[in-house]
Amino acid sequence: MAASFDILGIGNAIVDVLQLSDDAALTRHGIAKGTMTLIDEYRAHQLTAVLGDASLVSGGSCANTIAGLASLGASCAFIGKVKTDTFGEAFADDLKGLGVTYETPMASDGPPTARCLIFVTPDGQRSMNTYLGASVELSDSDVDPALVQRAGIIYLEGYLWDPPAAKSAIRKAIGAAKDAGGKVAFTLSDPFCVGRWRDEFLALIKNDVDIFFANEHEILSLYEVDTFDEALQAVRASGKIAALTRSERGSVIVKGNEVHVIDAVPTTLVDTTGAGDLFASGFLFGLTRGASLDRCGRMGAHAAAHVIAHLGPRPRVSLKALFAEAGLL
Amino acid sequence: MAASFDILGIGNAIVDVLQLSDDAALTRHGIAKGTMTLIDEYRAHQLTAVLGDASLVSGGSCANTIAGLASLGASCAFIGKVKTDTFGEAFADDLKGLGVTYETPMASDGPPTARCLIFVTPDGQRSMNTYLGASVELSDSDVDPALVQRAGIIYLEGYLWDPPAAKSAIRKAIGAAKDAGGKVAFTLSDPFCVGRWRDEFLALIKNDVDIFFANEHEILSLYEVDTFDEALQAVRASGKIAALTRSERGSVIVKGNEVHVIDAVPTTLVDTTGAGDLFASGFLFGLTRGASLDRCGRMGAHAAAHVIAHLGPRPRVSLKALFAEAGLL
Repeated sequence: MAASFDILGIGNAIVDVLQLSDDAALTRHGIAKGTMTLIDEYRAHQLTAVLGDASLVSGGSCANTIAGLASLGASCAFIGKVKTDTFGEAFADDLKGLGVTYETPMASDGPPTARCLIFVTPDGQRSMNTYLGASVELSDSDVDPALVQRAGIIYLEGYLWDPPAAKSAIRKAIGAAKDAGGKVAFTLSDPFCVGRWRDEFLALIKNDVDIFFANEHEILSLYEVDTFDEALQAVRASGKIAALTRSERGSVIVKGNEVHVIDAVPTTLVDTTGAGDLFASGFLFGLTRGASLDRCGRMGAHAAAHVIAHLGPRPRVSLKALFAEAGLL
Repeated sequence: MAASFDILGIGNAIVDVLQLSDDAALTRHGIAKGTMTLIDEYRAHQLTAVLGDASLVSGGSCANTIAGLASLGASCAFIGKVKTDTFGEAFADDLKGLGVTYETPMASDGPPTARCLIFVTPDGQRSMNTYLGASVELSDSDVDPALVQRAGIIYLEGYLWDPPAAKSAIRKAIGAAKDAGGKVAFTLSDPFCVGRWRDEFLALIKNDVDIFFANEHEILSLYEVDTFDEALQAVRASGKIAALTRSERGSVIVKGNEVHVIDAVPTTLVDTTGAGDLFASGFLFGLTRGASLDRCGRMGAHAAAHVIAHLGPRPRVSLKALFAEAGLL
C-alpha cells in the first residue's frame, strides 16, 4: 500500500510570541542569545510582562516544518498536544487550514497551550524562552500506530526529549513506522538540547534514524568536537542522510561518501526564527519527490531564505509557487 | 552534648573560573546575564576556549558560606564531592586551610571536579555557567550521620537539587540533624533553580527548614508573585526565620511577626559573585552566637559588602577582624 501521507511530524505544539528587541534587553532580562531556554510558568509570566506589542503566531519547530511541507503541496499529518484554550484552538486551526491532518486530542485541563517567547534582535537572531505547558501532556496514548503507518517518513524534533512523557510516544511511533517500512527523520533542534540529551540522540541516530538535520552548533555539540570538518567526518561515518546547515555559509548534505556543499540563497535577514525548520521542509519535500540530495539541499535553502526575510517562523506565501518560480519543481 | 561544629554545610564543590567581560561577550556566547546556567562538558570546553586570563578560585555557593563562617571564627564542616585532580585538591586545600573539617571521599574516577565559568561585567554582575562534573557523584554514602549530628545547624544549597543522586544525601542529612535536635538552614540559590524545583523547595521549607535565604528574584519565583511585598507576606506566613536580600536595597529579616529592614553597607561594587553566600555567612554566624535577628542581618550585610568589593566569591581578609572593627563582635 502506498503511503497516504508524505510526512507525519511529531513535536511540541507551541504558539510563538515574537517581540522585536535589542541586545541590551536580553542582558537586562537574563536571556541567553541565540538559543532556546526552557522556562517555567512563573518566568513565562515575568517575560510576558516585558513584551510590548508582540505578534502571536503558531510555531513549534516540527509544526513549522510540517506547515512548510503543506505549503509545498506535500500531504502531511501532525501529532502534538495543545489545550482547549485560545492559543490551542489557533494552533490547530492554522495547521488544519493548511490541509494538515491533526487529530491529537486536546487537553481539557492541566497547563495551558505551550508558548515560546521569542526576542528578535536587529541582527535577525532570535532568543527563545519556551514554556512547555500542555506539551508535557503528550503521551503514547496520543500516538495512533495506524496513522503513523500511513506516512512514508515520520519526522521528530529533538525538543520532544524535554517533556518526560513524550519519550514513550516517540518510541511507539518509531516502532510503528519501522514495522511499516517507513523512514525516520530527526532534527537535533538546539545545541543546549543536544547537551541535555546527547547520549540518547547518538543512540537514536545510530539505531533508528534515516535522515537527520543539524546546524553547526548542534553538530559540534553532538560529537563534542571543535571544527565543522571533524563533525562532518563523524556524520559521514554514521552512514545516514544528514543536512548540516551553516546559516549564511550554506549547508552540507551528506550520505556516507556522498557530500554536497550547497550555497545559501541570498536574502535580507529579518528574523532567523524558523530557518532550520523551513530548511527541513524544503529538504524533506525533495526526498518525498525522489529528488537528488543536492537538489533537496537547494530546496531547503530556498525555503529557509523565504522564512528569514520576515518576522515569524512560517511561510507567508505559497512555497509551491515560490519553488516553481525558482525552477525547483 | 553541646554541638562540636557551629555549622555543617552540604553543597556542590566547585572551582570558579572568573573572567572580566562585557555585555557584548554575553550575547555573543549565548550566556544569560545574572543567573546560573547548567552546562555540559562540551559547552564548558567551548566557553573555556573563550576565557582569557581568567582567575581560578575555590567557589561553590555553600562552600563560600562555610569559608566566610570559618573566617569569622565559627567551627565548620563541609560535605561535597570533588575528584582527585588539580582543581579538587586546590578546593580541598582551601577549605582545610581555613580550619574546616572536610572529609568527603574524593572521586578517583568519573567526571572532573566541578567548575563554574563566571563572566563578570563592568556593572559588577556575574553570569555563571556551571559544569557539575564530580558533584553529580555525591550520594548518601558521603553523609556520615555522626558528623551531621555534631553540628548545631546544617546548611543546604538549592543547587544541590540539580545533581540527581544528591537528594538522597540531603534527606539522610536532614533526618540525622533533626534526630539530634539540629536546625536546618537552606538557600534558594538562583531563580532558575527555584523554577526547576519549586514544589520540592516549598515542601522542604514547610516541613524541614528552620532558616532560609533568598534574594528578591528567588523569593518572587518561589511564591510566583509579582511584588516583594506579596512575597514578604508569604514568607511571614511560613513562620520560619528568613533573610530576604535585595542587593543595594538591603535586606528584610523575617520571623513570623518579627520583621527587620536592614540597609546595605555602602561599598564599591566590583563583582557580585558570592554576595548572597557571604550574607549567609554573616547571618548564620550571628545566629550561632545568639545575636538578635536584626544584628544577624547587619552581620550579613557587612560580610556581603566585603566580598562584592573584589573579584571572587570568598573573603580576602579576616572577617573576624573586619567585624570587630565594625563593632559587630
